[in-house]
Amino acid sequence: MELQLPKGTKDFPPEEKIVRDKIVSTLKNVFELYGYSPLETPVIERYDVLSSKYAGGAEILKETFKFKDQGERELALRYDLTVPLARFVGMNPNLKMPFKRYQIGEVFRDGPIASARYRQFTQCDVDIAGCSDMIADAEIISLTNACFRKLELDIAIKINNRKLLNDILKYFGINEEKFEPVILSLDKLEKFGADAVKNELKQKVIDEKTTARLLDLIDVKGSNEEKIRQLENAIRKSDGLDEIKQLLSYLDIMGIKAEFDVSLARGLSYYTGTVMEVVLNDSKVKSSAAGGGRYDKMIGSFLGKGEMPAVGISFGLDRIYDALMERKVAIEKTTAKVYVIPIQTLGEGLGIAKKLRDNGINTDIDLMGKGPSKNLSYANSLGIPFVIFAGRDELDKKKVKLRDMKTGKEEMLSVEEVISKLKTR
Amino acid sequence: MELQLPKGTKDFPPEEKIVRDKIVSTLKNVFELYGYSPLETPVIERYDVLSSKYAGGAEILKETFKFKDQGERELALRYDLTVPLARFVGMNPNLKMPFKRYQIGEVFRDGPIASARYRQFTQCDVDIAGCSDMIADAEIISLTNACFRKLELDIAIKINNRKLLNDILKYFGINEEKFEPVILSLDKLEKFGADAVKNELKQKVIDEKTTARLLDLIDVKGSNEEKIRQLENAIRKSDGLDEIKQLLSYLDIMGIKAEFDVSLARGLSYYTGTVMEVVLNDSKVKSSAAGGGRYDKMIGSFLGKGEMPAVGISFGLDRIYDALMERKVAIEKTTAKVYVIPIQTLGEGLGIAKKLRDNGINTDIDLMGKGPSKNLSYANSLGIPFVIFAGRDELDKKKVKLRDMKTGKEEMLSVEEVISKLKTR
Repeated sequence: MELQLPKGTKDFPPEEKIVRDKIVSTLKNVFELYGYSPLETPVIERYDVLSSKYAGGAEILKETFKFKDQGERELALRYDLTVPLARFVGMNPNLKMPFKRYQIGEVFRDGPIASARYRQFTQCDVDIAGCSDMIADAEIISLTNACFRKLELDIAIKINNRKLLNDILKYFGINEEKFEPVILSLDKLEKFGADAVKNELKQKVIDEKTTARLLDLIDVKGSNEEKIRQLENAIRKSDGLDEIKQLLSYLDIMGIKAEFDVSLARGLSYYTGTVMEVVLNDSKVKSSAAGGGRYDKMIGSFLGKGEMPAVGISFGLDRIYDALMERKVAIEKTTAKVYVIPIQTLGEGLGIAKKLRDNGINTDIDLMGKGPSKNLSYANSLGIPFVIFAGRDELDKKKVKLRDMKTGKEEMLSVEEVISKLKTR
Repeated sequence: MELQLPKGTKDFPPEEKIVRDKIVSTLKNVFELYGYSPLETPVIERYDVLSSKYAGGAEILKETFKFKDQGERELALRYDLTVPLARFVGMNPNLKMPFKRYQIGEVFRDGPIASARYRQFTQCDVDIAGCSDMIADAEIISLTNACFRKLELDIAIKINNRKLLNDILKYFGINEEKFEPVILSLDKLEKFGADAVKNELKQKVIDEKTTARLLDLIDVKGSNEEKIRQLENAIRKSDGLDEIKQLLSYLDIMGIKAEFDVSLARGLSYYTGTVMEVVLNDSKVKSSAAGGGRYDKMIGSFLGKGEMPAVGISFGLDRIYDALMERKVAIEKTTAKVYVIPIQTLGEGLGIAKKLRDNGINTDIDLMGKGPSKNLSYANSLGIPFVIFAGRDELDKKKVKLRDMKTGKEEMLSVEEVISKLKTR
């Protein structure tokens, strides 16, 4: 049998997983600093939930893994963590509002395998439900900013508003039922370029002149204030534009910069207001490292009672990992700090390992009775920074030999001395 | 639309998820103390991998969620983390041995929903590949013991050996091709009782007299030494029994108690030697909290070169959670430590929240402009321990009012004083 992974999936060996875990724990810390609590929902959902009216829309359902359980119920792997959040709020109508939660988990999309696009990937989502004021959108952006500062990644935050996009389309006389497909086309501007989008819009029966004017307005240049002014000159009154102004004023109070980008659309159909995206500066990773927005209709539809405001962002763990790797920081390959090598002294070796572990020092030990040089090469290949030789001679003197694998320096120390030395590292 | 979860799955709201995360982080810490490194494999696997000869066996395949991707490839949700580990080692033949890894992740079984049996559940697995000596089994048991001590759960560890069970069956003249089905029946002894097992064995054409003698020998009583003696008297030489003796002697050196239980079988067919199980003492949770064993054939079959020794254990997060909940410890419902209530002072409130967060204090803030009493009831319902009132009067004096939600005590403090007070908690 030839061993294979499912197409579009990958393993994360220890040297990668250690870094991924560090990213996740950094994000968790910031989420909790901002008062968000963790939630876990199942990886599998009922298909009727994922395909309901205000969920992710037709495009994403084409990429949804579907199957049935023993009882012939239609199930599917979740394609995001937002629809499950909405379902959770819908099933728990007595939750205190605002409900501030984060969730970290795998999502699945059975789509084409483009560059760095996986069929299973990990999202880290933060959302706040129950607050319609732009202050919630500002808090999400502030938290996002804090996350990337902690990760020491240089970013730009782009914002736009779906209501504004709708108002622009209305201004150009485009029919309301075409808003969603046209916006999904506009979403492809950055990825596929203006010509591809013009072609798509033609198929959606938008005449060439309108398309040209639309793309011109969306491509408006200048500072945030200049863009706002030009849009006001063109389309006059827009609730979406008012929201952008309000959001930017909150961000100003918080001392956070964001770029108003009228061409930003985001591919999912559930957004109703603010949309946001994080772009990495000075990185080869061109896709967004985080993205989200406001979706005021989905939860309400699940609750069965009108609207329930909600806004959130999703961090792409894989993109963040790739960006951090570009920095070429030395990668820890192992979690062990010291490797004990008993030399026909396994009993005593186990005792030493126990003492080290009791003192909180991550300790590995040779269980195979390998020779010293094989053991050294093992510890070296795993990147374990210290090695202890526990030979009969040393043990008789109540000592062990500690070797610093980086410098090669060796010292005769008591186990207690080893502990105090490794604890301060 | 009536909102539903897939049958056999559940959500973990923040008050449960916070506890689950603490359990996971305790386990991770101990795993790393013992020198194990993390691995992540996809939730989806190719069906041919999960159904290969030395994998989980026919029983578990009946409970495997199967589906196809766009390219009509047969995929499935993993039913454990052991087969994916074996596949990983098989695909990475240059891994340094022994390979010590842990993995925490969801697994799926589309089986009947018995009491506390879920179709999605979380396993925390620790395994060591590449070491055939019983010292590896002993290390896994030592680590298991350390985990439950850290969790402050009182446990008993049961051990047995599949080779011994095979030798016992051979001794009773049972055909080798019946070993696996008979052992799978014996596994049901504790759960369904002797009568049910007798019935099953009858269907497997084991005569009544043999069944009675078999069950008698398996039910052998006394201390570990007494059980070993009685088995030696009956079946004489057994490699499995030698392994049990060796394992018990290592555990003795480590100062760890384990009960040799000849009736212990474990349901999965891939075990080849030691099997082990953790039972919770003084708990209503009757199912095992952890279980595992040695599987020397699976990885070798994936590597395509004979045997590759491996042993490991899997901790059941859901069982451990249930056991901890029986203690009725006060549950933290939120991760926030303090809740800032601006009183028409949102701008200043945001500044205070920023200072607290910059000092590592988990901080929530009212974004809705609710009244003080509504805000207090919100903070109270979430179990947030402190509240800050930031009214105009207080702010003019460069102070805020800090309220201890437990005692009701209120103090006028500067933000710096609040920080030093909350940091020491």
